[in-house]
Amino acid sequence: MRRCVASLNRRVWAESCRRDRAWRVGACARALTTDAAREQGATARAWWAGSLAVGASFGLGAWYLATHPGPALAKDVSSLPEYSKEEVAKHRTPEDRVWVTYKEGVYDITDWVDIHPGGKARLMMAAGSAIDPFWSMYQQHNTQQVRDILEGYRIGSLEGGAPPPPEDPYADDPKDRLPALIVRSARPMNAEPPRELLTGSVITPTEVFYIRNHLPVPRIDEAQYSLRIEGQGIKTLDLSLDRLKAEFRKHTVTATVQCSGNRRNDFYAVKDVKGLEWGGAAIGTAVWGGVRLGEVLQAAGLDPGAEGVRHVQFFGADADGAGQAYAASIPVHRALDPRADVLLAYEMNGAPLTRDHGAPLRVIVPGTAGCRSVKWVTKVVPSGEEADSLWQRRDYKAFSPSVGWDEVDWDSAPAIQAMPVTSLICEPAPGARVEPEDLVTVKGYAWSGGGNRVIRVDVTADGGATWHTAELEGVEQEEGRNWAWVLWSAEVEVPGTPGEVEIAAKATDASYNTQPEAPGPIWNLRGVNCNSWPRIRIVAEEAQ
Amino acid sequence: MRRCVASLNRRVWAESCRRDRAWRVGACARALTTDAAREQGATARAWWAGSLAVGASFGLGAWYLATHPGPALAKDVSSLPEYSKEEVAKHRTPEDRVWVTYKEGVYDITDWVDIHPGGKARLMMAAGSAIDPFWSMYQQHNTQQVRDILEGYRIGSLEGGAPPPPEDPYADDPKDRLPALIVRSARPMNAEPPRELLTGSVITPTEVFYIRNHLPVPRIDEAQYSLRIEGQGIKTLDLSLDRLKAEFRKHTVTATVQCSGNRRNDFYAVKDVKGLEWGGAAIGTAVWGGVRLGEVLQAAGLDPGAEGVRHVQFFGADADGAGQAYAASIPVHRALDPRADVLLAYEMNGAPLTRDHGAPLRVIVPGTAGCRSVKWVTKVVPSGEEADSLWQRRDYKAFSPSVGWDEVDWDSAPAIQAMPVTSLICEPAPGARVEPEDLVTVKGYAWSGGGNRVIRVDVTADGGATWHTAELEGVEQEEGRNWAWVLWSAEVEVPGTPGEVEIAAKATDASYNTQPEAPGPIWNLRGVNCNSWPRIRIVAEEAQ
Repeated sequence: MRRCVASLNRRVWAESCRRDRAWRVGACARALTTDAAREQGATARAWWAGSLAVGASFGLGAWYLATHPGPALAKDVSSLPEYSKEEVAKHRTPEDRVWVTYKEGVYDITDWVDIHPGGKARLMMAAGSAIDPFWSMYQQHNTQQVRDILEGYRIGSLEGGAPPPPEDPYADDPKDRLPALIVRSARPMNAEPPRELLTGSVITPTEVFYIRNHLPVPRIDEAQYSLRIEGQGIKTLDLSLDRLKAEFRKHTVTATVQCSGNRRNDFYAVKDVKGLEWGGAAIGTAVWGGVRLGEVLQAAGLDPGAEGVRHVQFFGADADGAGQAYAASIPVHRALDPRADVLLAYEMNGAPLTRDHGAPLRVIVPGTAGCRSVKWVTKVVPSGEEADSLWQRRDYKAFSPSVGWDEVDWDSAPAIQAMPVTSLICEPAPGARVEPEDLVTVKGYAWSGGGNRVIRVDVTADGGATWHTAELEGVEQEEGRNWAWVLWSAEVEVPGTPGEVEIAAKATDASYNTQPEAPGPIWNLRGVNCNSWPRIRIVAEEAQ
Repeated sequence: MRRCVASLNRRVWAESCRRDRAWRVGACARALTTDAAREQGATARAWWAGSLAVGASFGLGAWYLATHPGPALAKDVSSLPEYSKEEVAKHRTPEDRVWVTYKEGVYDITDWVDIHPGGKARLMMAAGSAIDPFWSMYQQHNTQQVRDILEGYRIGSLEGGAPPPPEDPYADDPKDRLPALIVRSARPMNAEPPRELLTGSVITPTEVFYIRNHLPVPRIDEAQYSLRIEGQGIKTLDLSLDRLKAEFRKHTVTATVQCSGNRRNDFYAVKDVKGLEWGGAAIGTAVWGGVRLGEVLQAAGLDPGAEGVRHVQFFGADADGAGQAYAASIPVHRALDPRADVLLAYEMNGAPLTRDHGAPLRVIVPGTAGCRSVKWVTKVVPSGEEADSLWQRRDYKAFSPSVGWDEVDWDSAPAIQAMPVTSLICEPAPGARVEPEDLVTVKGYAWSGGGNRVIRVDVTADGGATWHTAELEGVEQEEGRNWAWVLWSAEVEVPGTPGEVEIAAKATDASYNTQPEAPGPIWNLRGVNCNSWPRIRIVAEEAQ
């Protein structure tokens, strides 16, 4: 019975995602009649919204209340029993029921465990204890609506009342961020610059570079820092930053880094997805300085032909309350290939890494989704398996537009590595006013993953009847190692009749892959890899 | 003045290509008043259609006559002077005027030289002599219309009348080709199987494999055969087939080879292009056996880090009357990378290569356009430059849809190497009859260049409202070395209302590149790399 209801919940939740953009939320589930509540003869029906931890941007709509007028959510908590911390701690498995506390409340969340969109494992870390530190970390839970819904699972109160609130894990985040950045989520910090700032120069100034954090920014004492290299068939190395710099040649690479959620907003326009509402500026290009990962791995004795080693895993110093570090991996042949230019980087644009960008050391995997370029890297592990994190196994994958949260089989798609060809129109601004027949300068960026050079950008202001081939500006790079984007500029003539004008662009790379026309056919439930033609609308009107 | 007219001609010719599909021809040019004709006070106005030599399919429309009623093309040749072969031979440069003969006619083609779409160099090979051997080689010239138009350049007749006709260079072509092949051009032979034959097995039987010849098939005595390795910074090697097999390890690779003109017919449906009217079956997958090109180059002393060596050129034994061999090149890093699996192959599907497929030795460049997998290879040359052939520098490149023959700058686009993600629907046949609400099994192939695995094929029968994820069948290959296509199969439900039903598909590769929706935005004047969604129409009707 419970299984059926949970399944229903999943469908209802998926439906809710389809219906209401305001309902941009990890998940919702109908609270079940729990054992404890049954004891009291009370029926708890409620909704609890969780979410993927990966920086999704949140806000619960009023969908439930609007469509399900029913029992009020409020309940008389004074009639519920009190439990000690020790009693709560006994409930850590589905067999014993899974209890958690939040402030002074005690909740039985057994029926939610399997359908938590952030994963059962992550939720089970809080089993038998307080979720407060986790919600403090993953602050997207902290809305009144989510709290109201959690109350539906309430079975009692904590003896002695609420424990002291956890420290704010984000209290030590950097304070010197560029005010012009558009913040998509403050805790963790996720922010992108206004797109107009991107076309200023091929190299993106560090302060302007988008920030994509999954967790609080670690503060690492460079003098104490050490990178561990360990794993299958190699000797363990512990390398201080000084030793890394002294023992390995410095290598610099100009590479674009892009969040695979970049341009997710174009998917939201089709139908709801989950994740940060990135515009198109979660991308930037920097000169990265560091040492080649492959040389470090070979120093540790990794044999390029080693049987069974297929991946190299990276672990960051950014970890949640339970110590789960951000982790990701890349194929080992890429890590070892000198032409792939994978770096352990300590410099960005000629200066030491800033804290937001991974100080003192981060991975840079050129041509590959930003989520693999692990920041604050503390451990590198050659392995037969991909990293066992949600960020590797689940979050950054795309499925058919017809695959919803109900049907998704996460193992059926590969983790995003190389990214597809993409572009953006950065200027003019949407809604800009021009005159009919004006020549308008259109500017933007274009990039392709896997080292594929962008060979052409075409721009149209007449629905594709005429394409203008843009001028490209970039840095000189080797064939197959074109890690950096190009900036482009084209002059297009606006039609002679006043009205709204759509300007569209498409980039083509050296494999002659090009961008799909529309986001609909590439829509995917996580909203990743949006690379359809960028389009903006401006207005042609006669001068007054 | 001549320059202006030639330019006008080019525009007129480009326009003609746009207007009339029957006008599927290399080029046309208004004949100018030539010196010789001027001497006689006669004005020659005519059109001559040439063509790219690369197996384009031909047929001159009546466009000129329809739109330019004027002087009749026929002229009284008996009033023209006679010239000796020696006199003709003096006219080999634009300064001396460029003359050629065809049968008993003498022609001044000076004004055509610069605008010959097959290239000035190729045309100038015939300067001062007979074009008969060339037209015999490039038989697409041999239509009544092309001959009529050539007559517009007639300035005289050859003393002693027509020379004996050249031998048929195609007389020795193989005779045992599969009758079921659909011939797109007989001389040179270009043929593809019916698409339904492709989905029979992941490995395409050799007899079914498409044939793409640029010239007559050479007949090579295996015992006499020798491969020369020569060029920048290496020692020259001459390797018999026995020595190649004895000194280098055998290596087999299952790889798909695709003509970059495959699916060109989908471009013809948009607007005219030039080239063989390939359906979608100029592609096949075989198990290739041979030696690694990189190992042979290293045996010749090629240093992977050698300064200045950027390409490896291949020359075939297939040559035209003037001895110009088919030639192409690939980047040197690809040639040397063991993971790129570039072969000098002597086996196809476990048997020695057939003559049509390059016996006794050919290049196989997995993941790359078929034109780089040079057949009947006789010479391999590491070089600072790409091969200096039209097939490398001109024919296999794509431009914006708005670039016509008038504006094209061949150097502005890179030679096609890795190919974009593509797919085809092989079954059901277009026009197939089904009943409303029937479940229809849709089958096809999908492939991506550069070793990118096809991760998903989606099929729709309702205009993209619902996508069915297909089952994939392929061979096990390593990450990044997925050289072989996948065959796919999906069951889709036909709508309940009778009528025409469009079925469309799209493949996605491991870089999450996907196919563009329509051919229009990727249309290019040479008609290469068509990879838009394959679409077929079937008919749903109630059973009688």
